Amino acid sequence: MMKAITIKDIAKKCGVGISTVSRAINNHPDISEETKNMVMEVIKESNFIPNKSARNLKLVDTKTIAVLIKGIDNPFFQNMIRVFEEEIQNKKYTFILHRVDTNQDEVEVALELIKEKRLKGIVFLGGSFSHQQEKLQEITVPFVLSTIAITDNVDKNLYSSVSVNDINESKKIVDLLLEYGHTKIAVLAADSSDMSISQLRIQGYRKSLTDKEISINENLFRYTCDNSNAFTMENGYKLMKNLLDSNEEYTAIYALSDSMAVGACKAILETGKKIPQDYSIVGFDGIDISYYYNPSITTIRQPVEQMAKETTKILFDLIENETTNQHRVFEGELIVRQSISKIR
Amino acid sequence: MMKAITIKDIAKKCGVGISTVSRAINNHPDISEETKNMVMEVIKESNFIPNKSARNLKLVDTKTIAVLIKGIDNPFFQNMIRVFEEEIQNKKYTFILHRVDTNQDEVEVALELIKEKRLKGIVFLGGSFSHQQEKLQEITVPFVLSTIAITDNVDKNLYSSVSVNDINESKKIVDLLLEYGHTKIAVLAADSSDMSISQLRIQGYRKSLTDKEISINENLFRYTCDNSNAFTMENGYKLMKNLLDSNEEYTAIYALSDSMAVGACKAILETGKKIPQDYSIVGFDGIDISYYYNPSITTIRQPVEQMAKETTKILFDLIENETTNQHRVFEGELIVRQSISKIR
Repeated sequence: MMKAITIKDIAKKCGVGISTVSRAINNHPDISEETKNMVMEVIKESNFIPNKSARNLKLVDTKTIAVLIKGIDNPFFQNMIRVFEEEIQNKKYTFILHRVDTNQDEVEVALELIKEKRLKGIVFLGGSFSHQQEKLQEITVPFVLSTIAITDNVDKNLYSSVSVNDINESKKIVDLLLEYGHTKIAVLAADSSDMSISQLRIQGYRKSLTDKEISINENLFRYTCDNSNAFTMENGYKLMKNLLDSNEEYTAIYALSDSMAVGACKAILETGKKIPQDYSIVGFDGIDISYYYNPSITTIRQPVEQMAKETTKILFDLIENETTNQHRVFEGELIVRQSISKIR
Repeated sequence: MMKAITIKDIAKKCGVGISTVSRAINNHPDISEETKNMVMEVIKESNFIPNKSARNLKLVDTKTIAVLIKGIDNPFFQNMIRVFEEEIQNKKYTFILHRVDTNQDEVEVALELIKEKRLKGIVFLGGSFSHQQEKLQEITVPFVLSTIAITDNVDKNLYSSVSVNDINESKKIVDLLLEYGHTKIAVLAADSSDMSISQLRIQGYRKSLTDKEISINENLFRYTCDNSNAFTMENGYKLMKNLLDSNEEYTAIYALSDSMAVGACKAILETGKKIPQDYSIVGFDGIDISYYYNPSITTIRQPVEQMAKETTKILFDLIENETTNQHRVFEGELIVRQSISKIR
């Protein structure tokens, strides 16, 4: 027979009063660090589960979903986060938002969190994903990659994903610039060695020009040096300044995110030049500011709310119905606004 | 003597193999829901702490800080969140970001989280705070209110806080508009019954006009109906539209956040009117877009990075040095930009 161990037994074993054990468990300020450690040690050795820890053991079955996000200050993710939280709370799961640093390995972070928080599922949001298959297989809970560039030839049965086709969408918006008569189109991009959406969108750009047999001028690419804040207004401003200071010829600018486009507009307007009269400019993502900016910015809108909903739907399917991994590609929407004009 | 309960004992009691118990504990897919529940039930009854749960028991001493945020999609908080995470991780604490809904009671959420996650400390970020003293006293861990409007006469010894003086800062920017010759200044605000920073900033507005003996026209206030997204571009746009459709006379607009100011600019520019030639406009907060917008927007910049650093500093002082509660008020910076001009 296994007799339940009580707080009395622990107090006896420690040679202290029950209230001291209670203080140790509850992390009360009125107990010295040594006493606390001693009591906690005994508790651990004894396999005693204090009331609160019993509650913690119940936590074994607490249903928690973590969203691991790369680029938390990217406004593109704001609406997605709101949807994630709603959908996850609707399902009576606990929602943890965990920011992953640009330089951190998100799978390592995930493995740590799975241990610590006993997660039921994970959403990876943003960034790129180029992990060894073996590494992915270490993730023991269902997970979905949401708006992530998957650049490796990883077996599709090992993960689920929700995204737009960045190459095709990018080609759409560059095709539009070509239709408008622009052939010298500068590109504001992330790091040149970047494996994220930046390089997929550049592929779309190259495809668009190549299909129309327009030669590509590599000098019109402006790559970010410090990749940690590539997609920001500040960086768009910097890259555009650099471009304006060069002797290159171009009539249009393709910023690989709307935030970058806003920064680029600022740099152009500061010189007294006009948009779209002097330069046409387009962005990507379809965040709110692309509509509210003056001039409003032509962009590809990603259906972020639907994408977030689909992400949680797939995740819960995996968790509750043990379905196989799914991949869902959404269509972006080309939105033509004030920031572009035709070449006369 | 207390004999440690082993996984073997559990397996025996359950009438299953050790590997099955292990699967149940590790939430392995190859086990039926019933078997898992049965095993977990026995584990709970037996006060057995499986290895992983022993690790969980160690979690009793995991150092976790939660940041409870109201208005996660407000860009004003983005830079603060980044600083919180850095500072908290530097101290080797775990960082949990938890979004609180506009209609949720943040203290209730906090009490629940303290139980579940065994928090060492809490940062409340954004929103207003009008709780009973008794309620605040239920919070058993140190906490700091950061950029929160405290509108009640709660004993200052019961909480720590970091903020700007919203009334004074608001008065500064309205004083500037008066200096520029504007006396008919419209206000885009949150809900009229709102107890957050909106009403403090309105107090500053009233003080500024009253001090100069300028009569206040209540018809120039535009209050938000749905308060959940009061401080957004979308709402600024709506409120400004409403104002433009009215017959009121005004030469300047004071939007109580920069995001609202951006939306208001859009509404004005759509009518073909010019900023600042036809209308001067000012915001509040000093977020990035106020600089990048065209025209750039006059605002009060809150030193958000320093405020976030001070918030964590106070919190760690409370946790580690058991200091008494502290209150720190920062100065805002008045930044004059393109969006205002003098009345001739």
